[in-house]
Formats: sequence, C-alpha cells, structure tokens
Amino acid sequence: MRVVAIAGVGLIGGSFGLALRAAGFDGTLLGVSSPGTIAEALRVGAIDRGVTLEAAVSEADLLLLAQPISRILSQIDEIGRMPLKPGLWITDAGSTKAQICARARRSLPPGVFVGGHPMAGKEARGVAAADPDLFRGRTWVLTPDAPGLLPSSLPEWIERIGARLLHLTPEQHDAAVALSSHLPQLASTALANTVGDTEVAGPGLLDMTRLARSSWEIWSDILTTNPGPVREALDRYIGALQSMRARLPELEREFESASTMARRLRGC
Amino acid sequence: MRVVAIAGVGLIGGSFGLALRAAGFDGTLLGVSSPGTIAEALRVGAIDRGVTLEAAVSEADLLLLAQPISRILSQIDEIGRMPLKPGLWITDAGSTKAQICARARRSLPPGVFVGGHPMAGKEARGVAAADPDLFRGRTWVLTPDAPGLLPSSLPEWIERIGARLLHLTPEQHDAAVALSSHLPQLASTALANTVGDTEVAGPGLLDMTRLARSSWEIWSDILTTNPGPVREALDRYIGALQSMRARLPELEREFESASTMARRLRGC
Repeated sequence: MRVVAIAGVGLIGGSFGLALRAAGFDGTLLGVSSPGTIAEALRVGAIDRGVTLEAAVSEADLLLLAQPISRILSQIDEIGRMPLKPGLWITDAGSTKAQICARARRSLPPGVFVGGHPMAGKEARGVAAADPDLFRGRTWVLTPDAPGLLPSSLPEWIERIGARLLHLTPEQHDAAVALSSHLPQLASTALANTVGDTEVAGPGLLDMTRLARSSWEIWSDILTTNPGPVREALDRYIGALQSMRARLPELEREFESASTMARRLRGC
Repeated sequence: MRVVAIAGVGLIGGSFGLALRAAGFDGTLLGVSSPGTIAEALRVGAIDRGVTLEAAVSEADLLLLAQPISRILSQIDEIGRMPLKPGLWITDAGSTKAQICARARRSLPPGVFVGGHPMAGKEARGVAAADPDLFRGRTWVLTPDAPGLLPSSLPEWIERIGARLLHLTPEQHDAAVALSSHLPQLASTALANTVGDTEVAGPGLLDMTRLARSSWEIWSDILTTNPGPVREALDRYIGALQSMRARLPELEREFESASTMARRLRGC
C-alpha cells in the first residue's frame, strides 16, 4: 500500500491521514476535498497533495470515502464510471452499511469495495479537529462481502493505528448500531422535547440531553439509510418503557439488569 | 439560628454541615445518625456532637431530615410524638415532596415543617464524600404551605451556602422532577435493558447509560412516592417516541427543537 487517497478530508478523513502517518506509513497521502479543506488538510499534515477524484482512483492503492452517507452513495456511482487503477481497493467511513454496500455491489466491479465504519468521533468537526489518536481503542467495523474478501493491508493498518477491528455483515452492523447509536440519539432527542424548559435540571438531565444537540444534517442521512432497524430498535425501547410503566414502582429487576449492562459497557 | 441538627449525616446532611460552617455559621451542629457515621462526621467536621432524635428536637432551632424518603416519613411520625423546642423548624432533603409534606401536615403541629429538596449530589455517597461546595450554584427547592410560612433564617442560609432558592408547591415540585429527573433515570434504565450487550458501543451510549448504574435502593423510595407524575412523564415520553417513529426519517423539526432545549439547559 504505497498511495492512500482520502475523499472528504474532515474530522474522520483527516484523522485517518494523521493516524497513518503517526503509525509509520511512508507512502503518499492524497486528498479529495474542496480547495479550502485541502489547504487546511495540507497545513495540519493530514495529506500530501490535493487531487481530483479521477486522479485519486487512477493513482491510489486504497481510497477511503469519508464524506456524509448521501455523498458516499453518489460518489460510488461516479467512481463506477471512471477507469480504476488495477488493484485499487475502496472502503468508506459511513455510519450505515447496508445501502452503501448494496450500491457498491451495483455500481463497482467485484473485489473493489469493502464497507467500513470507524466508530470514533468528537464534538468538533472538520480537519482542523483531526487527531492521530482518534481511532485508538475504538471499534472499526469492516463488512467484507465474504470472509477474506478484502486487501490484507487494510486490516493491518486499521490495527496499527490502534483501532479494534470487527467483521460484521452490513445487516448485522446496521442492526447493531440502530440499537447502540441511533436509538440513544432518538431517546435523547425525544427526552429533550418531552422535558422542555425546566427550572429543576440536575446533572442526570444534562447527560441525557447531550446527544440532543446533534445536528439534523448528520442524522438525516443516517436515519434515511437505516429506517427498518431503527424502527425495530424504537419498538423494543417503547416496549421496555411501557413494561416499566405497567410495573411501576416495582422495578428492582429492571434496575439491576440495567446496572449490570451499564457496568459491563464500562468494563467493570 | 444558634443550633442546627442534621438527621442522617450522609453526603447531603454532611455537606450541609460543612457548607454552613464554611459560610460562617458559628452556632452548634448536632448530628443524628448511627455511631459509625457520627464518628466519621465528627472526623470531617460536619457536626460538633452526636445526639438522639429526642435531644435534637428539644435543643435545635432547625432540624434537617436528610435520610432516604421512607425514613423521613417514619421519622416525621416519631417526631410528632416528641416534645419540640418552641420555635423549632423542621425541613427535609427528600427527592419527592407531596407525600412528605402531607405526612408532616398530619403528624406535626402547624408552622413547624417546610419541605425542601437540595438538587445536588454526586456518585460517591456517605459523609466521607461530603463537600462544603456541594450546593453551590445548584437549585434548592422549598415548598412552604403558604408564601412566607417559613423561618427567614432558612432561605438566608440556603443562599449563603451558594444555592439558588426556588419556591414551589409540593405538587409542582413532584411534577417538575418527574420530568427532569425521574424520567431521565427511567429512560436510561430502559435504554440499557434494550441495548443489552453490544460490540459497537460509542461514547453516546456511555452518556445515555450512566444513570442506569443507579441503585434501586435509592429509586425505590422516589418512584413509590411519586407514581402519578412519573406515569404522566412516561406517557409523554412514549408519545414523543411513537410520534418520531411514525415520522421517521423526517425528524428535522424534532431535532431542532431538542437541540434548542439542550443548548438552553446549558445556558448557551
């Protein structure tokens, strides 16, 4: 893997460039983004050179699509109409996988695309917030069409930058994040709207409404491309709330199992 | 106010003693607790002397009941059978107010009790974790039976220790905390139970399951003494979730109003 291209050099794309460099990657890093973003990405050292998408797919050994999901989908179609460097692998960083992988199966030659989702982020956005340690200790999901159907260099570098590699099918991934990520977001949004203005807010309410500040711009794409699993997750959550309401105030069992799960999440 | 007694010298009671002292209270601080707690409270300087409840109500100008709600309820009955120092005021720190205030109206002479709820806390419990700054910047609710029906020294000291005083009726208080505190707890408990074990947990899930670690021991009393408002809060929350499920993925309006509310909570 001598040439890596990153399309969408924002927080995730920029951090990938910085992380590869910090982990000893001594090949070339290409960036595909707007002129302003390219200038900033060059300044922080996340890429070596700005290029067009056409140049990226003709030069790179690996291309990471790190834009919003809707842009990844349209870019897969564009790439499908371009001549690709033989041996090029394309992966992505989109937060849902089934629709992206289906699009890639339809628009790209076989053996070129493997879906991915680095489960990392922070509140600040853009390449100015890029961080070589962003992926350290975090899960990076890959969704190869078949076991082994991906270039060995990709998992190797994912592990070298400190991430924990996890193989799932696109459908397994989308069902899992519907519960662990999309449902918490909707639970927080609904809670903020239910509580409204209050004079008696405690620290618990602050925790539970932090996600509610998230922008619709990001979530629109996620919810649009994962509606089935999200509805199922909401149904399970609404069911759990209804069952607690019916058994109120006898919730010892619910508190104990929730506490066990919350502690396990924290590794204790 | 020369003599203040604290029944239940734990995190809240102990912090009240330390906060009074730090704010310049030079009278006597009495503590009513188990021998072990009294020894620890003396060690950290939260009280000057351990006494019996009988001695406390015969010596103190102000008595703060800072135990769990069920113990506050039974202690109000006990106090109602004891001779009280003329001019004694009793307040409490219970997290729900309607049942406690009703019990005080039934068991204590008029003009003796005013309900209270200092909305402060931290994860560590017990007098060893007591902190003179625990109430600084936090809301302290008082629920006098009528405006002005409380000793002037109590609101004065509440403000001197840095808390923000808020007068509500017991019913207003219980409806408000059902939304701002009890609902977030149940939302977190239900979420932890819905998500269960997951390989793809992100930071959002950690935020949203922090409250789920809370012990049933504390919440049993709270939910038992506030079932009506909690059911109403759950109904509103379940309604908000069902409406979002029905409109999925078109949730721009919900995200925007939630974001506004969450930012306002944070004063920005």
